[in-house]
Amino acid sequence: MDLTGFEKNLKYLPLRDLRIDDPFWNGCVRLVTSEILPYQYDTLWDRIPGAPPSRCIRNLKIAAGQEEGTFEGWVFQDTDLAKWLEAAAYSLASLPDPKLRATAEEMIDLVLAAQQPNGYLNSYFTILHPGKQFCNLKEGHELYTAGHFIEAAVAWYQVTGEDRFLNAMRRFADLICEVFHTPEYADAVPGHEEIELALFRLYEATGEEKYRAMAYDFINRRGTTDYLSRENTLPRFVDVWHDPNPYVPEYGQAHAPVREQSTAEGHAVRALYLYSAMADLAGSYHDEALLAACERLYENITEKRMYITGGIGSSGVMERFTTDYDLPNDSAYAESCASIALAMFCKRMSRVTGEAKYMDTAELAIYNTVLAGIAMDGRSFFYVNPLEVIPEACMPATDRAHVKPVRQKWFGCACCPPNIARTLASLGEYVLLQGDTSIRVNLLISGTFKARIAGVPVKIAIESSLPWEGHAKIRVRAERPVRGTLLIRVPDYAEDPVFTGEGGAFVPKLDRGYAVIPVEGTATAVSFGFGMTARLIYANPKVSADSGKVAVRKGPLVYCLEEADNGEGLAALRIDTSKALREVPGGGLRDSVTVEAEGLRLQWSGGLYSTRAPDSVPCKLKFVPYCFWGNREPGEMTVWVTAK
Amino acid sequence: MDLTGFEKNLKYLPLRDLRIDDPFWNGCVRLVTSEILPYQYDTLWDRIPGAPPSRCIRNLKIAAGQEEGTFEGWVFQDTDLAKWLEAAAYSLASLPDPKLRATAEEMIDLVLAAQQPNGYLNSYFTILHPGKQFCNLKEGHELYTAGHFIEAAVAWYQVTGEDRFLNAMRRFADLICEVFHTPEYADAVPGHEEIELALFRLYEATGEEKYRAMAYDFINRRGTTDYLSRENTLPRFVDVWHDPNPYVPEYGQAHAPVREQSTAEGHAVRALYLYSAMADLAGSYHDEALLAACERLYENITEKRMYITGGIGSSGVMERFTTDYDLPNDSAYAESCASIALAMFCKRMSRVTGEAKYMDTAELAIYNTVLAGIAMDGRSFFYVNPLEVIPEACMPATDRAHVKPVRQKWFGCACCPPNIARTLASLGEYVLLQGDTSIRVNLLISGTFKARIAGVPVKIAIESSLPWEGHAKIRVRAERPVRGTLLIRVPDYAEDPVFTGEGGAFVPKLDRGYAVIPVEGTATAVSFGFGMTARLIYANPKVSADSGKVAVRKGPLVYCLEEADNGEGLAALRIDTSKALREVPGGGLRDSVTVEAEGLRLQWSGGLYSTRAPDSVPCKLKFVPYCFWGNREPGEMTVWVTAK
Repeated sequence: MDLTGFEKNLKYLPLRDLRIDDPFWNGCVRLVTSEILPYQYDTLWDRIPGAPPSRCIRNLKIAAGQEEGTFEGWVFQDTDLAKWLEAAAYSLASLPDPKLRATAEEMIDLVLAAQQPNGYLNSYFTILHPGKQFCNLKEGHELYTAGHFIEAAVAWYQVTGEDRFLNAMRRFADLICEVFHTPEYADAVPGHEEIELALFRLYEATGEEKYRAMAYDFINRRGTTDYLSRENTLPRFVDVWHDPNPYVPEYGQAHAPVREQSTAEGHAVRALYLYSAMADLAGSYHDEALLAACERLYENITEKRMYITGGIGSSGVMERFTTDYDLPNDSAYAESCASIALAMFCKRMSRVTGEAKYMDTAELAIYNTVLAGIAMDGRSFFYVNPLEVIPEACMPATDRAHVKPVRQKWFGCACCPPNIARTLASLGEYVLLQGDTSIRVNLLISGTFKARIAGVPVKIAIESSLPWEGHAKIRVRAERPVRGTLLIRVPDYAEDPVFTGEGGAFVPKLDRGYAVIPVEGTATAVSFGFGMTARLIYANPKVSADSGKVAVRKGPLVYCLEEADNGEGLAALRIDTSKALREVPGGGLRDSVTVEAEGLRLQWSGGLYSTRAPDSVPCKLKFVPYCFWGNREPGEMTVWVTAK
Repeated sequence: MDLTGFEKNLKYLPLRDLRIDDPFWNGCVRLVTSEILPYQYDTLWDRIPGAPPSRCIRNLKIAAGQEEGTFEGWVFQDTDLAKWLEAAAYSLASLPDPKLRATAEEMIDLVLAAQQPNGYLNSYFTILHPGKQFCNLKEGHELYTAGHFIEAAVAWYQVTGEDRFLNAMRRFADLICEVFHTPEYADAVPGHEEIELALFRLYEATGEEKYRAMAYDFINRRGTTDYLSRENTLPRFVDVWHDPNPYVPEYGQAHAPVREQSTAEGHAVRALYLYSAMADLAGSYHDEALLAACERLYENITEKRMYITGGIGSSGVMERFTTDYDLPNDSAYAESCASIALAMFCKRMSRVTGEAKYMDTAELAIYNTVLAGIAMDGRSFFYVNPLEVIPEACMPATDRAHVKPVRQKWFGCACCPPNIARTLASLGEYVLLQGDTSIRVNLLISGTFKARIAGVPVKIAIESSLPWEGHAKIRVRAERPVRGTLLIRVPDYAEDPVFTGEGGAFVPKLDRGYAVIPVEGTATAVSFGFGMTARLIYANPKVSADSGKVAVRKGPLVYCLEEADNGEGLAALRIDTSKALREVPGGGLRDSVTVEAEGLRLQWSGGLYSTRAPDSVPCKLKFVPYCFWGNREPGEMTVWVTAK
């Protein structure tokens, strides 16, 4: 077993070989195909009454010369379609659907029609500044948009085998590689990272070295130049947002060379897209210093700057990380896209290092913030994922204008909904990692999966009771006798794990957080059981926002109180931490386990302040999974509850 | 005694007759003359190294044709000088100073030189848009600026008897009365209120009815027209801030007719300046409906929207009120000017109604937020007055960029420092109110005061031990035998009040919160003692930000924990509410009483979250007066402390 910082040759498996069939996840994953993709497709066409118009398809049609008009919407509006196409590809991988495929191909036609002869693709600049390209990296989002189109093209190619879209996006990537190696762009870096990880994906899909090298150049340049700060003084600069403020280098992680960064700074989505590419490149180039930076950044996030829900980004202003232990609950930003990006980073770190701990964090983000981002009907979304909501206080034109107490149909800036869709549709990539002679089971999600051990095709069946019970049965069937290992991640929350094979219970070796199960012959079966009771969680006392409070977590799921179960005035409730929590199976939405606690409700008569301590009456508190909050009548919600 | 909603004929006394000589207040009040006025005068001339330039005097010189150049700074920059002049007048009332007087007269010369032939005065429009006037009430602040010049002129006239400045500002007021009664301004209202209360002051100083009528028109128009929303479509509109957002009527209290308003909305300073004028006019016109609105707004503020420190304004965005019980401590706005405005409103409500309760609130604001706004050396200032500070979290380009952990030398937008100066310099107006046959003692502040009872000149001497002990001795000496009453406010925090006259202890009648003490003959003396121990304060459980927390208050003073006394990590401290608080006389800054409590410090090893409850060790907590916070090394501060 390789015990240096890098694991060798770990790979994601093709999505078409990963069939998730899980009581918990089916409800969400199948929504992608049945609801989210059709709904989001209608939004791209501006067909959803009451939702802000996207203008995405209209912009591309205008850029393609198929319609008259001007650009409308955000500068990165094209990415709505790019992420939709990526999600559509993933959906087709698990569920062939000729109609969806035909629609997607029509959209690919549109994208290719909007592409310029030199490979450039961006409806904003093509319509508003024809002939201009890469003149405002700070605000223009061209490389970010390019990255999403490249990711979509790679996904389409990997799922369908068709290379028309891929080849078109290679031409765009070739243009980028050319332009960004000219002298006048020698120190240029993307304003919003994403192209780096996309170029790496393109490299892995095509084997073309220059894409990897360009990604590496971009991250190596970052923080070593003042390009983004001085760009607005260049003759070629085209203003987009007319922002009078000077560029804040931390905002775009451009404040220090990436290998010297130790704290997660600035815009959280940008940061985690960057770190994702750093992880990919560290692994691919065996770059120890880069990997060390990734590890430091991971530690900083998870030990000091992450909400208990896997949310990141504490400030609505600039959608950014702030400082250690600054985790306000009611004004949290915790953008859905940021938790997706955190999961993406952790998936890569898991692949690069072979360490299980990264998947603890990915799992936390996916089961909580990512899932909370979408309504149970797949038709409304959270952009921001607060941990405490009092609906009346989420007022427009205040500090908390970014927090919405109910999911929105769509957003003017609609990065999150299609990002959630592509994440749910590619969930299989989080479940398994393929090694040379090993398979890593990263998430205990039920399904049937095809992989290889030492070159021999194997089928892996997982039957998991998560997140309601700590039990999973994993069977490996090989086409012919094989010798290898099954590595099963032991979650950080697993109490008293017990492994049972055909010969009864056994104690496996542990390696980097994985239980090492030998696979021999054609059939291996193992049961993995562990305690996963609902537990009280305490925050580090440096987190002022959680002072005197506790939260409830069961396995990967964080719980919350909602007004629908507990009446209004959640701040007047106290939880008795000396009494046991009680789990109620099937008591909640989608048959979820709810959790009851003993508590008090404070009584108060009078005004705002008093020298008299409030009286209280006993009451029961009912906690529900955070991922399902806001699916009933709108009301208050809180994750952290004041202790008695 | 009149028991309808209005008291009759209550008046403020001339400041020159009010000599404050108080162990607690002298330190601040005398700073106005010795430090604040000279320091602020230097800032007006841009002479303070490291402070943002004011440009105030330079702008006026350019407007007066005495210098070349263009306007710099905020559109309301002139008001810095106006408030300085008002404060200078008040300072001269208590301490004649030929040099200060000469300087002030020179400044009045400058103001008059910048005034236009038609009476108009505003350096921003005179320099940048010559000939234009009242073309952007929403943003231009011309009427706000006019109001401050009028207040300064009235103050100067009342203190010095000289009417040159007053007459000049009457010409400005005459212009306003004329313009705002033309058909095209028939429904126009000020964007930032202030002119209304200033016109009322001008009416009281001159007896000129039309000023009162104009003020009444302005408040009667408010909320009945869409003038501010549609102003930017008028041909005369001159854009100032190029704000792409539509006007938010609540921001300027223009969302409903004033008599129908029941909740304090929008920009807190604007709101309280408006309510101040409403109180004046309600009293002057005996307008029952208007008084009822003032009473409702007062109740809404003090019962639902006010910090325990008398701070108001919960959101940094728009510096505004938000909703009931929304009182975040770490992101509070609680602008110094807003608490000044609250005290101004309460002073007027006290005068109009004769009710003592309004002075409970004025006292709270003055002793806490207003006083905290200025450093003990008079040379640095808070604009925003948070109730919890962790310095590292007060980062630029985040949600909390408005919160500063240390007082600033000056501000680009420097409304607060000169506003604090004029408030401290006119503190006497808060101490006493003159009735026909009665004197109201509103604040127990030591000093010697000249007044009249039934026309007979009297001298009132107050010797008060506040805020450290609940004891005051009040003596009235009349020039000749007199018959009347001394009304002494019994503070809301007074425990077991005892009054002692020459014949021993007695129980006075109570009227609207005042103890009624008969004054007969030429000498009356009364001692007023009450318990005023440090007490724990609980917040209404609807205030989520204070859930599980308590604060400490002693008499009018709210206390806080500072890192300087309690080490870093204040969120890890717990107060034991079952143990008595202990007062330590003379233990703090300016010989203040400090308060000790028994508590715990949580111990924690590990990361961000844990299933293990933290251990703790006993510790002592040391509380200091909030008004003196931030006068030592910078560090954490909190008013609300988590209970054990």
